[in-house]
Amino acid sequence: MTRPKLMWALTVVALMGFQARASAEALASWNDGPAKKAILEFVKVTTEKSSPKFVPPEERIATFDQDGTLWVEHPVYGQLMYCLDRVPALVAQKPELKNVEPFKTVMSGDREAIAKLPMPDLEKIIVATLTGMTTDQFNAEVAKWLSSAKDPRWKKPYTELTYLPMIELLSFLREHGYKTYIVTGFGQDFVRVYSQKVYGITPDQVVGSALATEYGYAKDGTPQLTKVPKLMLNDNNAGKPEGIHLMIGQRPHAAFGNSTGDQQMLEYAGAGDGARLSMLVLHDDAKREYAYGPATGLPDSKIGTLTQALYDEAKQKGWTVISMKDDWKKIFAFE
Amino acid sequence: MTRPKLMWALTVVALMGFQARASAEALASWNDGPAKKAILEFVKVTTEKSSPKFVPPEERIATFDQDGTLWVEHPVYGQLMYCLDRVPALVAQKPELKNVEPFKTVMSGDREAIAKLPMPDLEKIIVATLTGMTTDQFNAEVAKWLSSAKDPRWKKPYTELTYLPMIELLSFLREHGYKTYIVTGFGQDFVRVYSQKVYGITPDQVVGSALATEYGYAKDGTPQLTKVPKLMLNDNNAGKPEGIHLMIGQRPHAAFGNSTGDQQMLEYAGAGDGARLSMLVLHDDAKREYAYGPATGLPDSKIGTLTQALYDEAKQKGWTVISMKDDWKKIFAFE
Repeated sequence: MTRPKLMWALTVVALMGFQARASAEALASWNDGPAKKAILEFVKVTTEKSSPKFVPPEERIATFDQDGTLWVEHPVYGQLMYCLDRVPALVAQKPELKNVEPFKTVMSGDREAIAKLPMPDLEKIIVATLTGMTTDQFNAEVAKWLSSAKDPRWKKPYTELTYLPMIELLSFLREHGYKTYIVTGFGQDFVRVYSQKVYGITPDQVVGSALATEYGYAKDGTPQLTKVPKLMLNDNNAGKPEGIHLMIGQRPHAAFGNSTGDQQMLEYAGAGDGARLSMLVLHDDAKREYAYGPATGLPDSKIGTLTQALYDEAKQKGWTVISMKDDWKKIFAFE
Repeated sequence: MTRPKLMWALTVVALMGFQARASAEALASWNDGPAKKAILEFVKVTTEKSSPKFVPPEERIATFDQDGTLWVEHPVYGQLMYCLDRVPALVAQKPELKNVEPFKTVMSGDREAIAKLPMPDLEKIIVATLTGMTTDQFNAEVAKWLSSAKDPRWKKPYTELTYLPMIELLSFLREHGYKTYIVTGFGQDFVRVYSQKVYGITPDQVVGSALATEYGYAKDGTPQLTKVPKLMLNDNNAGKPEGIHLMIGQRPHAAFGNSTGDQQMLEYAGAGDGARLSMLVLHDDAKREYAYGPATGLPDSKIGTLTQALYDEAKQKGWTVISMKDDWKKIFAFE
């Protein structure tokens, strides 16, 4: 064996050792059960070279909803809190909004009234607070908010409310050559600010609802992109597979969601050839997190709706349901 | 040193040796000159840990225009040839188009008349031939066309008309941790069919003009995406940095183009902090490829326009111009 060949062989041996160790420890927060088994089986049959269901590395795509799938979405989506928190700064810039609804209600601080704002009002707030600045200004504003905002129940930054078993799953899939994408109904620009730090996911692997930008020049001639109120992609429901096609261009082999907004993504991933993994996170742990949705015997929720129909579809199509109560040893890293 | 630590050290040593060998051979088709020097210098200062201009791997983004930058665009863009070639099949499906312009002219086979079709007519043909089928059907049609269509001058498949020095550059950047993206004014769905095979670039790293898709179900209930005539992104001019923000979410550190359609991308990449590389491919080799544009002393071209103004901007902003004639030893792999 020549010297370079020996080096190469040692490299391969070293990497194999690393991978085997990593796999054994990778899903440490998962209980042995049908969900963990389904994941291990899927990864085995799609990544072992001798498997008839082997998937070449460039086709290993896994997509994850964020809110309710990777991190807590109750009592209110994190990004919606950001938009509400931005209203005072917006009103300071545009005082004429002070007496205009829905900004007036938000400025009143009346929590009950704010909680009752209907969706079109929330959309007005979302669009108004996410546009009108350059992309660099937006990134700085979000980073600042994330460093100080806290979830009301755990009194922790939102970025600490990620589900440890799902973080392990992201790493486990990446160690086996999968590219992991977030496919969120919320704004992709928002998630991209923290995706690398929190999920190990680069901004280009975050797909989400997107408002357009406009290219132009600052007064000193520097090129800049300004966020403008024109919806490019509504990455919910049918918008999820459409967004996946737009941004990723391949059908995922695995998809993970928790609500009706993820139905079409789970169907689309599940309907391809070969081995497929569609999984549904069930919020059935009122003690450690939250319990909601008819599948838990509880009333449905406006935030993260999981209808009985979707639950039935999951059962009928052989998707695996992840019970937070039964499948997860730990939910949060800080527990 | 423990056994795992020894293994790890050997791995690192082996990989370093591999990388050093790869770098020396990587740009074999480039002559020593200002263009090659600029590339080597940029990669050195952005990837050596001790460099004050070091760029962390997750921020190493390089974007490439396709037509005229990575492959031949004269006498006519490859994808436009595809659309023209699809017209007979379209007319067979929709006979009512036979006597409607511009389809009538294309069906006449009159090359001179076809060459004179104005842009709005070409757009009608593009939209009509790229929509109305599922994404799977479209991919199959493009793959079939690519396997038989030939460029009129070299009598070779379009996918062999890539520039060898640029293919080497793509590999060289990837070996140094850069993610390489195509950012094309033509359709991203078209380029994605061959990007992995031809450029080593996965579909998710192809950004381009995009028509929307619509999620639905086939008669047997299988989910499918249908291509529809709604423009999501016109990835030309200002649309290039806007498309980069939409799909990549980070400003590139390096960008490569050849025409006015690339101006804003080159400006945007060049205007960031730290080391930046904006390069302009100049078609000045009439013998081995083509020569066009005022910067070569020749008349401007409708296909791949490079105005004197853009050439002047390049000089003024310190972008490096790549002379095909002087900087490239070989242009095509088949030479």
